[in-house]
Amino acid sequence: MKKFTRVLVLLALVSLLPAACMDRPAEEEKDISSPPNFIVIFCDDMGYGDLGAYGHPTIATPHLDRMATEGQRWTSFYTGASVCTPSRAALLTGRLPIRSGMCSSERRVLFPNSSGGLPESEITIAEALKESGYSTGCIGKWHLGHLSPYHPDQHGFDFYFGVPYSNDMDRVNDSPEGRAAFLEPKTEYWNLPLYRNRKLLERPTNQNNLTRRYTEEAVTFIRDHQEEPFFLYLAHSMVHVPLFRSAEFAGQSLRGLYGDVVEELDWSTGQILETLKELKLDSNTLVVFTSDNGPWLTFDEQGGSAGLLYYGKGSTWEGGMRVPGIFWSPGLIKPGVVMEPGTTMDLLPTFLELAGAEPPSDRIMDGSSLADTLRSLSPGPRETVFYYRGDQVWAVRNGPYKAHFKTRPGYGSEKAVTWDPPRLHNLEIDPSEKYNIAENHPEVIAEIQKILEEHRKNLKPAEDQLADRLEEGQLSLTWADE
Amino acid sequence: MKKFTRVLVLLALVSLLPAACMDRPAEEEKDISSPPNFIVIFCDDMGYGDLGAYGHPTIATPHLDRMATEGQRWTSFYTGASVCTPSRAALLTGRLPIRSGMCSSERRVLFPNSSGGLPESEITIAEALKESGYSTGCIGKWHLGHLSPYHPDQHGFDFYFGVPYSNDMDRVNDSPEGRAAFLEPKTEYWNLPLYRNRKLLERPTNQNNLTRRYTEEAVTFIRDHQEEPFFLYLAHSMVHVPLFRSAEFAGQSLRGLYGDVVEELDWSTGQILETLKELKLDSNTLVVFTSDNGPWLTFDEQGGSAGLLYYGKGSTWEGGMRVPGIFWSPGLIKPGVVMEPGTTMDLLPTFLELAGAEPPSDRIMDGSSLADTLRSLSPGPRETVFYYRGDQVWAVRNGPYKAHFKTRPGYGSEKAVTWDPPRLHNLEIDPSEKYNIAENHPEVIAEIQKILEEHRKNLKPAEDQLADRLEEGQLSLTWADE
Repeated sequence: MKKFTRVLVLLALVSLLPAACMDRPAEEEKDISSPPNFIVIFCDDMGYGDLGAYGHPTIATPHLDRMATEGQRWTSFYTGASVCTPSRAALLTGRLPIRSGMCSSERRVLFPNSSGGLPESEITIAEALKESGYSTGCIGKWHLGHLSPYHPDQHGFDFYFGVPYSNDMDRVNDSPEGRAAFLEPKTEYWNLPLYRNRKLLERPTNQNNLTRRYTEEAVTFIRDHQEEPFFLYLAHSMVHVPLFRSAEFAGQSLRGLYGDVVEELDWSTGQILETLKELKLDSNTLVVFTSDNGPWLTFDEQGGSAGLLYYGKGSTWEGGMRVPGIFWSPGLIKPGVVMEPGTTMDLLPTFLELAGAEPPSDRIMDGSSLADTLRSLSPGPRETVFYYRGDQVWAVRNGPYKAHFKTRPGYGSEKAVTWDPPRLHNLEIDPSEKYNIAENHPEVIAEIQKILEEHRKNLKPAEDQLADRLEEGQLSLTWADE
Repeated sequence: MKKFTRVLVLLALVSLLPAACMDRPAEEEKDISSPPNFIVIFCDDMGYGDLGAYGHPTIATPHLDRMATEGQRWTSFYTGASVCTPSRAALLTGRLPIRSGMCSSERRVLFPNSSGGLPESEITIAEALKESGYSTGCIGKWHLGHLSPYHPDQHGFDFYFGVPYSNDMDRVNDSPEGRAAFLEPKTEYWNLPLYRNRKLLERPTNQNNLTRRYTEEAVTFIRDHQEEPFFLYLAHSMVHVPLFRSAEFAGQSLRGLYGDVVEELDWSTGQILETLKELKLDSNTLVVFTSDNGPWLTFDEQGGSAGLLYYGKGSTWEGGMRVPGIFWSPGLIKPGVVMEPGTTMDLLPTFLELAGAEPPSDRIMDGSSLADTLRSLSPGPRETVFYYRGDQVWAVRNGPYKAHFKTRPGYGSEKAVTWDPPRLHNLEIDPSEKYNIAENHPEVIAEIQKILEEHRKNLKPAEDQLADRLEEGQLSLTWADE
């Protein structure tokens, strides 16, 4: 099989020339041997096709487009799951959710009446970097457990500002029924709590300015920690329905409400990058922009676009798990387009390598460091991607080939289709998964089946954290109530 | 209705800074008041989603991506028809093909046994610019008539190098049957003639190096005419099936054969831009890169991608007529993303305005000058787009709204669906044409119907040029045979 190691050097001069000719002394002033800072900007339900840089025709994302041109635009960047809770667990632990119990055969994510969360035994990026002296902040949506043992402060974060779960949870009884509440959303329809550390600030949260407030908190965190290495995990509540944006973004986007919300996220990202430049931290900070899963297509115009990819959130088709992946760091990485697979689980080992630390050695890690590819556009380390639906593998990518064992739309009543032989696609030639080539490549299917067997052999699923529920009288307990 | 006048200024500094700090005297050396040169790079069957800058994940187009970043990337740029012959007539005349007889109820394009062509009475970009002293060259596929009265030299071109029609025409009898010839194409399967001016050079044309030879001819044309204003129309035969590329591009693209071919077109465009820079013509030349229609989806992996747009070549869905549209001219235009509609018919009036000349005043023109938008990113002039299938209007866009009166896939036996009321989409909110909003907007439909009535009232269809056929004994006559 052809090893697909194609990366592109493009516009390298774009980011180098201005720095060179503007005679900016940033690099000289800072000690570039100091450990780099890391910022992960993690959007909710943003699709592969929702940014200008990924081909959207009417959503204006000049800051992200520029970030992509100055940095690396990854075109095969995957999440660890097609829905929220397991995807977040995967990113923060560098491991498949099956290993932490953050996926289930029963419920797809944590709900307000869930009693579980990310186990204490898991090591997050924040915990791992703290050992190397990093300050750590989590701003935004958590969704890894909203009872006391699962607060971000139990998982390595010094600072927290945000909401414990999705912004469509805790809907109040007298809100419009069914989908009506989402079509013209009002923030009071959802009784969402907002916290600073463990202190409840608001309930319901005013979601109208939530993106702006997350951004302001993020900028403050960066300013407050400019003298020390830091890790900031900025997990936006948007573009998850119900959709909200600040007054100055209302009615601005040609794409309507959904576009307004993405354009505020673009503005937000611009604020982060501007702050880094102003503080002369840009040459020693790596910023990653991505999404937790594909677009929630069942919400029609209020859901995003997976571009040329098939299907969206909740499914193991490409649109469910392939997302925008932009890496930016004028001082640390080589600009270009990377077409090889990477995943959010690769961030933990990548950050640790760049920080000069070792990843946890007492457990199986599913991520691999992308540091070499970031620095030099050299071939990436990843050959294989597992596509889990709940606690089951439904598809496997190996090299350019993806075998589907089962398929189903992300949501709705349509039943799963079992494929025997597995449905096979060459994703490089057929990114839209149109043409089943199983008949012509039994040897590829055999290899993928062997990889899957090997994976299963070494797999010890952790205790399911999503199935457990609170008793009737304890519903909607959160951190502040204990 | 909201006037949609959204344009984005982005990365303006990218193209300005290097020029400023490299102290390049290009602008000083050239007399910038001299009329600008124009180059149209017109691909065949390239889809909206086939370039990196438009979101393709595995086709590497660094030159075009850079061209888009340095120039203007139009995200709602349309052809004048969804198939080849009428689309070319529209671009060169600035008029809907119905006005020149270059569309028909009977045949969709010219075939080797056709006897018609673009009428002598039509005024092409080349003829119009010649009046202002331009040298004019046509390189590539013509497809506007292959008998003597229709040669490019009858339509204002001083120089011609290319093939008279599509590269899948004149198939030899002993080639593999049906689609087999396209799956592993050999250049000898098609008895395509290649001309320099009226001289036959080859038959069959060696298509393997056709893109490279077109490129070399184009570079030579630019060098030969660097001291005078020139117009070059470079109409590539690729990415029309059968797909061919030079040896150095074989097996290079992750996207397979189709990707190889696009990547050679990317290289070709890089050669053109490099030549302009080397000759210090870049500050006074406008280069436009676009395609004649959407991807030919019936050819599966050998056809391109319309990205997030629905359907492809031959249909009046967006994928049939919305194509990449990149404008590049470091000295003349303001970099950015333009989301308003533009069409290939706008090129004639745009070029004439930039050349200081007047468009033809004795006939109805369907194009409007985009010069202001190019110079300043100001709102574009175009509100309405007519989507013809053959000689009938099947859909109309006005502002963000598009009404479909009839729909049908581009090819195949599926019958047309008539919509009453018309199927209505807001293309800015719903570029994939998923959500029919006709019920909620009868007033929009009424306005579009009025526009269509007005259009029909002023319409005098010209005599059908595509229906006429040669007698049995005259088949495959071309210019050289007369």
